[in-house]
Amino acid sequence: MHPKSYPSTQCPMARTLAVVGEWWTLLILRDAFQGLARFDEFQASLGIAPNILSRRLAHLTAEGLLERRRYSERPPRHEYRLTAKGRDLFPALMALMTWGNRHLAPEGPAVLLAARRDGRKLRPVVVDAASREPITPRTVALVPGPAAGPGMRARLASNRALRLSPRLEARS
Amino acid sequence: MHPKSYPSTQCPMARTLAVVGEWWTLLILRDAFQGLARFDEFQASLGIAPNILSRRLAHLTAEGLLERRRYSERPPRHEYRLTAKGRDLFPALMALMTWGNRHLAPEGPAVLLAARRDGRKLRPVVVDAASREPITPRTVALVPGPAAGPGMRARLASNRALRLSPRLEARS
Repeated sequence: MHPKSYPSTQCPMARTLAVVGEWWTLLILRDAFQGLARFDEFQASLGIAPNILSRRLAHLTAEGLLERRRYSERPPRHEYRLTAKGRDLFPALMALMTWGNRHLAPEGPAVLLAARRDGRKLRPVVVDAASREPITPRTVALVPGPAAGPGMRARLASNRALRLSPRLEARS
Repeated sequence: MHPKSYPSTQCPMARTLAVVGEWWTLLILRDAFQGLARFDEFQASLGIAPNILSRRLAHLTAEGLLERRRYSERPPRHEYRLTAKGRDLFPALMALMTWGNRHLAPEGPAVLLAARRDGRKLRPVVVDAASREPITPRTVALVPGPAAGPGMRARLASNRALRLSPRLEARS
């Protein structure tokens, strides 16, 4: 189910979805963040067929999001732990969870985020690291990065939204 | 490819992925944020088979993320625009894009975020709306919300990570 253009696409979101854009993949990562590590733990949590789970774990290991470690010699048994690359997906999972709580929980949220230290409830928002101002479709633009090829430049130039203010565009 | 437990699951992330957890779905939303609206525009951008695109657009419309509007009477033609519910996924898309730029662009990023007003580059981070402090796996806990059923409570109680500090847990 991958678009024909992958892996040649330069779009970082398309590349991301090529790695994690699949139901089970993100749910396995969710479980890993909650501390699950062993094959049968994931299986019990997800109710997923063993062959699909094997394939998804192998994929996540090959892509470097999970690390496979032997925890028993006889019988040989492995556990799967998040790598730094895998842990870096936490903000995306938080953003998806927040959307689900807001739009898909008419009976009210079943799970909330709290500060570990004092239990205060948290509400995740995406902001710019420097200014701490919210990033919204009204305030941001997509601009070519240093590696942008002609295809990406053409695409961004043809965008009808997420553009710089006309004043700035005229200057560039 | 949906886990057996859906739609009974209370997990907001599982519910979210039941709606948007599919390659094409999130790429269609990406395009909609960039201003694409017509069937043939999405098709040209994504290189997707018409029958799959039809199905995905109908799904996103039925789920209330896109709104279908007629823009021509003869021949009858429709365009698809993001609703408030669809626009609310923007932070999640920004988080996925950020991860792709960091981990899947060894040649450097091809597309960056900039402030529309002044062109300053932006770096998205997920923070708590009130304190503006980053939300990370080390600082947050998952706790039952008002609608948490017994299954969700049992699951959260058995988590080995994302827990409140022992001092707080002893009190609750």
